[in-house]
Amino acid sequence: MKLYDCLIAPNPRRVRIFLDEKGIEVETQEIDILVGENLKPDFLAVNPRGIVPVLELDDGTRIDEAAAIWRYFEETQPDPPLMGRDAREKALVESWERRADQDGMLSARDFVRNQVPVFVMRGHPGRATDPQIPDLIERGKNGMRAFHDLLETQLETSEFVACDRFSVADITALCAVDLGILGEFPGLDGYPAIRRWHDAVHARPSVEDWITNIQTALAGLPGSP
Amino acid sequence: MKLYDCLIAPNPRRVRIFLDEKGIEVETQEIDILVGENLKPDFLAVNPRGIVPVLELDDGTRIDEAAAIWRYFEETQPDPPLMGRDAREKALVESWERRADQDGMLSARDFVRNQVPVFVMRGHPGRATDPQIPDLIERGKNGMRAFHDLLETQLETSEFVACDRFSVADITALCAVDLGILGEFPGLDGYPAIRRWHDAVHARPSVEDWITNIQTALAGLPGSP
Repeated sequence: MKLYDCLIAPNPRRVRIFLDEKGIEVETQEIDILVGENLKPDFLAVNPRGIVPVLELDDGTRIDEAAAIWRYFEETQPDPPLMGRDAREKALVESWERRADQDGMLSARDFVRNQVPVFVMRGHPGRATDPQIPDLIERGKNGMRAFHDLLETQLETSEFVACDRFSVADITALCAVDLGILGEFPGLDGYPAIRRWHDAVHARPSVEDWITNIQTALAGLPGSP
Repeated sequence: MKLYDCLIAPNPRRVRIFLDEKGIEVETQEIDILVGENLKPDFLAVNPRGIVPVLELDDGTRIDEAAAIWRYFEETQPDPPLMGRDAREKALVESWERRADQDGMLSARDFVRNQVPVFVMRGHPGRATDPQIPDLIERGKNGMRAFHDLLETQLETSEFVACDRFSVADITALCAVDLGILGEFPGLDGYPAIRRWHDAVHARPSVEDWITNIQTALAGLPGSP
């Protein structure tokens, strides 16, 4: 079994946190998206969509999308449950996870991908055909603001994002909030409940210091100071 | 229990097909997105995200996102299974469902939402703050083309999208392909495997004639011929 990973990409991070919470170790192969390794023939043969993460099973089956990789391990190793325990809780976890993905991750992706020079002509992940669209910076920030407002209201009365315990909804929300911070979204001022939750979740052993990983990777690029 | 529905919107359609495949009947309340009923206070009190579908349970719990509503019913009424049977199959269904959602539905949404007059200032679902971005029409079509290429390759050797039986991956892929047809995406010429699958899936009793529903709704709008 092997995980095609990328230390600085937000979606493989969702899988790494999940595996660590479960106590599962998987061999990894690093794919460097900053230099476009994900768009080269070797990786496109693994995943024609050109994106990470991908889990390769021992029988050769390849599964991409963080949520699909979670599903595999939630079924093969149910404890601790990270995707809900009964029908209602599973549905709430799925609802909040999709909210965090659609409203949080995709909004943050819009304003990061469409402004940083390394993604010129790569405005959409996995393709080299899409010019950056500057208007998506503002639209992404509108979306991120709406997501923060929704999350703040929820975290005012709930310890975690979807229910009374840590779940994949917390993982995606955390990765979205951190991607926003990286993209110089105004930050967590005015969001005390998100800040309380963010500090608590960051203190979990499964949560690496991702922003430092990125700063290190960016400093190593040609042309960096 | 009640489902906040919208006959012409692609995401509630994902839930209707699923419920029909399961043989489940749920009371519905129609929310007309064409006249912006989803952005009015009554509905925002139900879902602050301003989007359908939403399932309201008898205890008042509200669940939004089609996939979360599926999850609730897959757990409470497992037969027939529409989200996979074992760990590997469940992961493959989740992977293909997310592919169809991210690459298909969101690409089609980009090129429909950002060009039709009814969605001026509603370039993003659930908000009235986002001007249409004409550059997203081309980006959406790039994405849809990539999704069709991926789906064609898969359906050349597989009867259904994710495995050897109908699943939620077929539902989302169907809704994406039909939204593309509605948005005058070039169609299925050059995609014989998609066409074979599309004809077969459309023949299922669960699949309503959605494009006719839309044409009827559009003809009823003020200013229509």
